[in-house]
Amino acid sequence: MNYDQIIQLALERGFYFPSCEIYSDAHAGFWEYGPSGVSLKNKFIELWRRELVRRDRMWEIDGSQIMSENVFVASGHLASFADPIAMCTKCKSIFRADKMIEEITSITIPESADLVEFDKVIQEKNIKCPKCKGSFESIKKFNMMFKVGIGAQGESAYLRPETCQSIFVDFPRLFKTMRGKLPIGIAQIGKSFRNEISPRQSLLRLREFYQAEIEVFCNPANLDDLPKFSEVENTQIRIMVDDTIKSMTCKEALDSGLVPNKLVAYYLGLLVEFYQKTGIDVSRSRFRKLGEKEKAFYATVAFDFEVETNIGWLELVACNYRSDYDLKSHGNTSKEKFEVMDDETKVLPHVFEISMGIDRSLYTMIEHRLREDKENDRVVLSLEPYLSPVHVGILSLVKKDGLAEKTDEVYMMLRKKYDTFLDHSGAIGRRYRRLDEVGAPFAVTIDHQTLEDNTVTIRNRDSMSQERIKISDLDSHLARATAFP
Amino acid sequence: MNYDQIIQLALERGFYFPSCEIYSDAHAGFWEYGPSGVSLKNKFIELWRRELVRRDRMWEIDGSQIMSENVFVASGHLASFADPIAMCTKCKSIFRADKMIEEITSITIPESADLVEFDKVIQEKNIKCPKCKGSFESIKKFNMMFKVGIGAQGESAYLRPETCQSIFVDFPRLFKTMRGKLPIGIAQIGKSFRNEISPRQSLLRLREFYQAEIEVFCNPANLDDLPKFSEVENTQIRIMVDDTIKSMTCKEALDSGLVPNKLVAYYLGLLVEFYQKTGIDVSRSRFRKLGEKEKAFYATVAFDFEVETNIGWLELVACNYRSDYDLKSHGNTSKEKFEVMDDETKVLPHVFEISMGIDRSLYTMIEHRLREDKENDRVVLSLEPYLSPVHVGILSLVKKDGLAEKTDEVYMMLRKKYDTFLDHSGAIGRRYRRLDEVGAPFAVTIDHQTLEDNTVTIRNRDSMSQERIKISDLDSHLARATAFP
Repeated sequence: MNYDQIIQLALERGFYFPSCEIYSDAHAGFWEYGPSGVSLKNKFIELWRRELVRRDRMWEIDGSQIMSENVFVASGHLASFADPIAMCTKCKSIFRADKMIEEITSITIPESADLVEFDKVIQEKNIKCPKCKGSFESIKKFNMMFKVGIGAQGESAYLRPETCQSIFVDFPRLFKTMRGKLPIGIAQIGKSFRNEISPRQSLLRLREFYQAEIEVFCNPANLDDLPKFSEVENTQIRIMVDDTIKSMTCKEALDSGLVPNKLVAYYLGLLVEFYQKTGIDVSRSRFRKLGEKEKAFYATVAFDFEVETNIGWLELVACNYRSDYDLKSHGNTSKEKFEVMDDETKVLPHVFEISMGIDRSLYTMIEHRLREDKENDRVVLSLEPYLSPVHVGILSLVKKDGLAEKTDEVYMMLRKKYDTFLDHSGAIGRRYRRLDEVGAPFAVTIDHQTLEDNTVTIRNRDSMSQERIKISDLDSHLARATAFP
Repeated sequence: MNYDQIIQLALERGFYFPSCEIYSDAHAGFWEYGPSGVSLKNKFIELWRRELVRRDRMWEIDGSQIMSENVFVASGHLASFADPIAMCTKCKSIFRADKMIEEITSITIPESADLVEFDKVIQEKNIKCPKCKGSFESIKKFNMMFKVGIGAQGESAYLRPETCQSIFVDFPRLFKTMRGKLPIGIAQIGKSFRNEISPRQSLLRLREFYQAEIEVFCNPANLDDLPKFSEVENTQIRIMVDDTIKSMTCKEALDSGLVPNKLVAYYLGLLVEFYQKTGIDVSRSRFRKLGEKEKAFYATVAFDFEVETNIGWLELVACNYRSDYDLKSHGNTSKEKFEVMDDETKVLPHVFEISMGIDRSLYTMIEHRLREDKENDRVVLSLEPYLSPVHVGILSLVKKDGLAEKTDEVYMMLRKKYDTFLDHSGAIGRRYRRLDEVGAPFAVTIDHQTLEDNTVTIRNRDSMSQERIKISDLDSHLARATAFP
């Protein structure tokens, strides 16, 4: 189903919708999760915790979103985290230069390129303001961090543009108090903020967005000394080689030199195993190694994990080998010591990062699992049961004859443990369709026979088949069917 | 144990610590959760979801933290959400007037009082600047919202000072698409931001903090028509009557007129049942009805849920009957329609709010459950097993003889489903003590007998008793013992 149909479903079934939409001064790039979206997001996060944080014995932290100025002096964001912008000399409209040039000319200039490269193309291709045909001023850099003033004096601080800075800044305390040993992953889920010039496409380019970031601190001398690599060595990953995607095992990617070391290969493998369990079709994924001009300013080696969607290849995760860039900078700026002991050696750890966009991942999960079942005149969101916003719909066939009360009883039994949707009214077929659209894998219906023998029908979303089971067996049936893998 | 001992534990055992602490420009009022804190917070939130959101069939949303200016024009925050501040004419230091006056003179002036009342006391009591003895300018109002500039033009928007505004603004869409029926609760967990003049006491007065807010939309004509009230009518709550705390059932509180209606009484009962399960000692709690000058500007009736701690009575939850203040204001400012049908009647819903501070709740949980066990020379955080940051420690008695490998095997079996702490080294007694301090209810030890018969010892945190159980029984043992109630 296409992008517009997905937005439609998102709006109508409580997945996501624009923030402050009742107001004329609402800003683009801010979206909210409705009840279905929150439930899906929570389950996605639980899966991430199980498959990455707990599996790999990482620590998870939750840091402040507002951070002091020195953090971003050290990180380089104050100086370098800027988009090239073009301002029209006539109507004063502002455009993001790289995006505008690409849309008009199909020429791709990396956003990190020298500013004169943009000016050159604008001149050569005679690009004018799309709004008023005016000419442009020279391209400028616009810092994408949101500034806030703290206290009555308004001292400068910033909303973090990436969650990982808390992890770097907190590393000395965490490593000491948590009795760390390299390599160790530190993870964080939270909001980040970027003042995008051209936010667009709902969840895909937001100004306020969720990241799930993992920073693995390691001894650069031991990147190939990793016994746990054997857990993923046969995991298939897909990787760009020249201009084609090749499927290979993690071990083959390592042996062929496409991936520089065991540590990186291990986490690429874990990542694919995780996404497989989200229900995203990983046979439509690829790791793409970024070129020099495409990489973020802190990365020495970078792989984007991209997935094919209706609107093209979408970056879900950036995997960056950040070397000692961060710890060295924070150490220099703060005078705090970041070296730690690794066995007998003092070492300034290097960092490998797995920076995941949650909002984009959720969009892709919906897109990859949503299908039109024309034969049965329905739309089905066939999410894995453990990820479905609603585990089970609880329906009374009709309201009268005491069925509503019996339905409430079943609901009371299940409501705390499962995500349920209680629905008393409307044609039963239409209620099933609605549950199909939010991805509920099961629907329990209370009918007249229930009153006689305490059995209910349980309908399977995908097969549409129904079976009768005892009310007393419902909990164990659902527990099994909705358990995380 | 006292406040300083709790901070010490928080810092040393990964519960919480100051944000940006390595930098000299770190601002007060920002704290981060370490691994133990995150784990405790996640479990607290899961309990809140089970006992309030799911139990009461609420919807949970997750809205943007940055909201447009009109939202706060309508909510009244732009005009009224301000602290009284006193600036020294000489050294220009700024103080929060009400706090400063209270500290110096013990006179309490509500923060919402007229500004002249502050000036009067300052003059009468001849209060001078605590820093330089200079005199003060007239008291001014300082708006506590953080402003941010959106886009290259920097249009005004604000970090929300309370999460509930998203709930109000989103109400029309949610009620329609989710097929709402009054009364209906809409819940949200998230960060809010207040530019406090005097943040202090770690998690207790933060500039960036977590709220769990519930807004119950109801028909003001039907506040006593609530069959589900019977679920809590016998639940004991403690409520201030004149100057003493009386314990009574929800039904008694309602019948005596201390609580104005069934709807409010129902939610006060649910709230106490929830806090009981957090392990907070609710026999040290009270609902306190706020006086006219103490209440927030939007409340017609307000109860604070307060708990006794080492540093006095602490407000954990504000329960406000906000009437139609919010929906009427947003309706007037946006021209969106907020009336909905309740059976056959068109009604502008009233709102009852349960606004919970998560950070303060976590502090109180730790304080109420932390005890010094002098007899056994240990400190024990006796959290409920379902809330403990670590469910189970997994220890090898010694590293050699293959015990480390066997320990890893047990760990691999449990790591995805439980929060585990794997620990190979150090004296076993010291490792048990450390687990006691993070509240781990169980510790599994792998010893030489394990290699012979695949049994391990499992130690109970509270009784310190140990029993031997089969490795194959561990999962079902832990599943039962750590399950939510």
